[in-house]
Amino acid sequence: MTHRTYELDRAHVFHSWSAQASLTPMVIESAEGSHVVDDEGRRYLDFSSQLVYTNIGHQHPRVVKAIQDQAATLCTIAPQHANAARSEAARLVAELAPEGMDHVFFTNGGADAVEHAVRMARLHTGRRKVLSRYRSYHGGTQTAVNLTGDPRRWPNDYGSEGVVHFFGPFLYRSEFHATTEQEECERALEHLERTIVMEGSDTIAAIILETIPGTAGIMPPPPGYLEGVRALCDRYGIVWIADEVMAGFGRTGTWFALDLYDAKPDLITFAKGVTSGYVPLGGVIISEPIYATFADRVYPGGLTYSGHPLACAAAVATIETMKDERIVEAAATLGSDVLGPGLADIAAKHPCVGEVRGVGAFWALDLVADPQTREPLAPYGGSSPAMNEIVGACKKNGLLPFANYHRIHVVPALNIAHDEARQGLEILDEALSLGDAHVAR
Amino acid sequence: MTHRTYELDRAHVFHSWSAQASLTPMVIESAEGSHVVDDEGRRYLDFSSQLVYTNIGHQHPRVVKAIQDQAATLCTIAPQHANAARSEAARLVAELAPEGMDHVFFTNGGADAVEHAVRMARLHTGRRKVLSRYRSYHGGTQTAVNLTGDPRRWPNDYGSEGVVHFFGPFLYRSEFHATTEQEECERALEHLERTIVMEGSDTIAAIILETIPGTAGIMPPPPGYLEGVRALCDRYGIVWIADEVMAGFGRTGTWFALDLYDAKPDLITFAKGVTSGYVPLGGVIISEPIYATFADRVYPGGLTYSGHPLACAAAVATIETMKDERIVEAAATLGSDVLGPGLADIAAKHPCVGEVRGVGAFWALDLVADPQTREPLAPYGGSSPAMNEIVGACKKNGLLPFANYHRIHVVPALNIAHDEARQGLEILDEALSLGDAHVAR
Ligand SMILES: Cc1ncc(COP(=O)(O)O)c(C=O)c1O
Ligand SMILES: Cc1ncc(COP(=O)(O)O)c(C=O)c1O
Repeated sequence: MTHRTYELDRAHVFHSWSAQASLTPMVIESAEGSHVVDDEGRRYLDFSSQLVYTNIGHQHPRVVKAIQDQAATLCTIAPQHANAARSEAARLVAELAPEGMDHVFFTNGGADAVEHAVRMARLHTGRRKVLSRYRSYHGGTQTAVNLTGDPRRWPNDYGSEGVVHFFGPFLYRSEFHATTEQEECERALEHLERTIVMEGSDTIAAIILETIPGTAGIMPPPPGYLEGVRALCDRYGIVWIADEVMAGFGRTGTWFALDLYDAKPDLITFAKGVTSGYVPLGGVIISEPIYATFADRVYPGGLTYSGHPLACAAAVATIETMKDERIVEAAATLGSDVLGPGLADIAAKHPCVGEVRGVGAFWALDLVADPQTREPLAPYGGSSPAMNEIVGACKKNGLLPFANYHRIHVVPALNIAHDEARQGLEILDEALSLGDAHVAR
Repeated sequence: MTHRTYELDRAHVFHSWSAQASLTPMVIESAEGSHVVDDEGRRYLDFSSQLVYTNIGHQHPRVVKAIQDQAATLCTIAPQHANAARSEAARLVAELAPEGMDHVFFTNGGADAVEHAVRMARLHTGRRKVLSRYRSYHGGTQTAVNLTGDPRRWPNDYGSEGVVHFFGPFLYRSEFHATTEQEECERALEHLERTIVMEGSDTIAAIILETIPGTAGIMPPPPGYLEGVRALCDRYGIVWIADEVMAGFGRTGTWFALDLYDAKPDLITFAKGVTSGYVPLGGVIISEPIYATFADRVYPGGLTYSGHPLACAAAVATIETMKDERIVEAAATLGSDVLGPGLADIAAKHPCVGEVRGVGAFWALDLVADPQTREPLAPYGGSSPAMNEIVGACKKNGLLPFANYHRIHVVPALNIAHDEARQGLEILDEALSLGDAHVAR
């Protein structure tokens, strides 16, 4: 049976972001809490939350039950109707959002949330261009992948989506020759304003930013940066879209990563954590002025499964579970008590660890071949023997890591037990010795 | 409680394709088979299949159970892994597809299926432009809505997606001054070839066509048209994408609408019927040469929920149920024995019915203000008092119709009981008298 799963996968499943011929996917048969189990009965501690989305862990019984109950009641109804699960999910999501963001447009995932947020911004402003940063990920559909600031954009770039990329703040690899967070912040804002002016502020509909860039390296912006972005958007009449698809729903130890800062966007995109991925769901949270634009004018966008009842029921149960079990608070404690100190220790021990960054259950190790030059342990957009060895050692020892180019991200379930988290850090610690062997001395 | 659902909807839910302020959505509380029930306990016969997707009707117990079982086993796992539900769904979908189309890339819905099919075609050919027909719908994300050939494209059209529209065959409203199906077919193919030549055949990556255009009016192509498209694609090295999102999975009385014709596309997009919408799922079925392009070269696209286990389990159960209960065959019989003859009778009685078109469980009434000039009963992209009266009368009498501009589509569940279908036709018959009153005499 499990052999059959593998064979059928190779015969019939076309996988994301891959050359198909060389794949040898792991067969996952079951999962629970922070563990997944493969077809040979091997248990892995999930330090990836898959693609950073199973925020409440695998198979939480309360959410499973809510899905089963909704399935028994009403699996689906078209978007034009009203439905209890949809209404309640919208209420709960809006309640978590900043004041004055009361309406929710539901999508199936993150990419379509971004597509629709961009559309709303363009129609609201009557402008076309969208600014986004290098080192970012916004999804796989055409507009979303063009907004993306990583190498996955390149093969899809026809230069026609009206997207302009700029550099964001990232002190460890500063583009601005800065030496302090404050300097990085000021210079990054200056660079953004210069880009706006040179592109023509009247041509720019929106600036989209992951509140804390995720896949691109988990780089919390310095204090004042997002507040500065807000001020620039106000000055030039630009819509700020905060992409909280990965950072949102508790990942940072707050409901939204935005809650760590003192600035309010015009649109928020979300997905992943809202249902812990148990049923696909995403969406856009809309501020009052943008809602007002579409009060009497038709919003020209939609999708068959907007506000899908089964997905909305999963969202309601996920949010209620997170509240009742204080899972967001657990993520904060996990960061301050276990992952923060634990990763700092690891960084101190391993020359291949250039920097540790993060908050809550959202951490990155920036691995380097040379601590002086900060040369990454794998090239931008590529892999390397060193990285393959580290990832291989993690898996061999029962840890499922999240790796991207020269980085290892530590992104477990928010409610992972502290001893499990420590166990995972030990395995990672050991694996990183293989990285050290590649460091220039 | 139900009042609360309505209030929360108005306070928090942003709806597709609408001006938000004027909406008064119907609250749907439950559904079963071909009926939905509102918050006042009123039952409606669902002649819409919602947005033409609940092909097996509402709440089929076998599919509900499969969802519940999969939820208990494993709700989700990331796309890079292999999983039994995903493997089996891919096998079943590939098995239904034409010979030589063995691989399936799963998405969340129809729009992202179209986005990814276009990407595959562009990278496979190294070309950029995509041709699609006027009178078509391909989805709500930016590339998909630009491919769309209806007024919903207009507010989203920046002329930059590399899309070129042409006219397809549609004898009742011929663009080619044709008087027979054969003439319409020949002239439409000639027009398509002229468009290819004038656009520069080497610039064209793909032609995307709904096999039978759905939302735009259910216009089965004349015999020979799709075969002619295949020949043109072969001649000019163009990828043919067959969009089966609405027409597929039994709607036409065959598994794919393509099965009614003798021509094989290079890519097939699907969604809706594959799970009857119980869990969001879509995808692209890929022919061998296009698969081969991405055997050793990375496919630069993906999404968090590609091959979502819960959705795949729903697909497996839906397909098996359709097979075991002979639901596709039921759709064919429904068309030949009930809807075909019943709608022909209705057309004969009502001067406002200009034409009846369709097959299986997939029918349109083309309503006119003047049978001679064929002036539509509502303007292109708009509404009219006549249409509002007809739709209102249907609802008042317990029928949920699918209306689009000047058309009423009859698109019930494929397995609707024949007496229920006849009951629905009676209500429609009565409502159309209101349309007759608007016909010029
Ligand atoms: C910040 C961000 N935005 C958007 C997306 C796209 O989401 P999806 O894969 O559900 O389309 C992702 C996915 O990783 C993401 O991390
Ligand atoms: C032919 C066709 N293609 C694509 C789509 C888009 O599918 P979705 O709404 O799931 O994105 C639709 C939806 O009605 C459709 O009918």
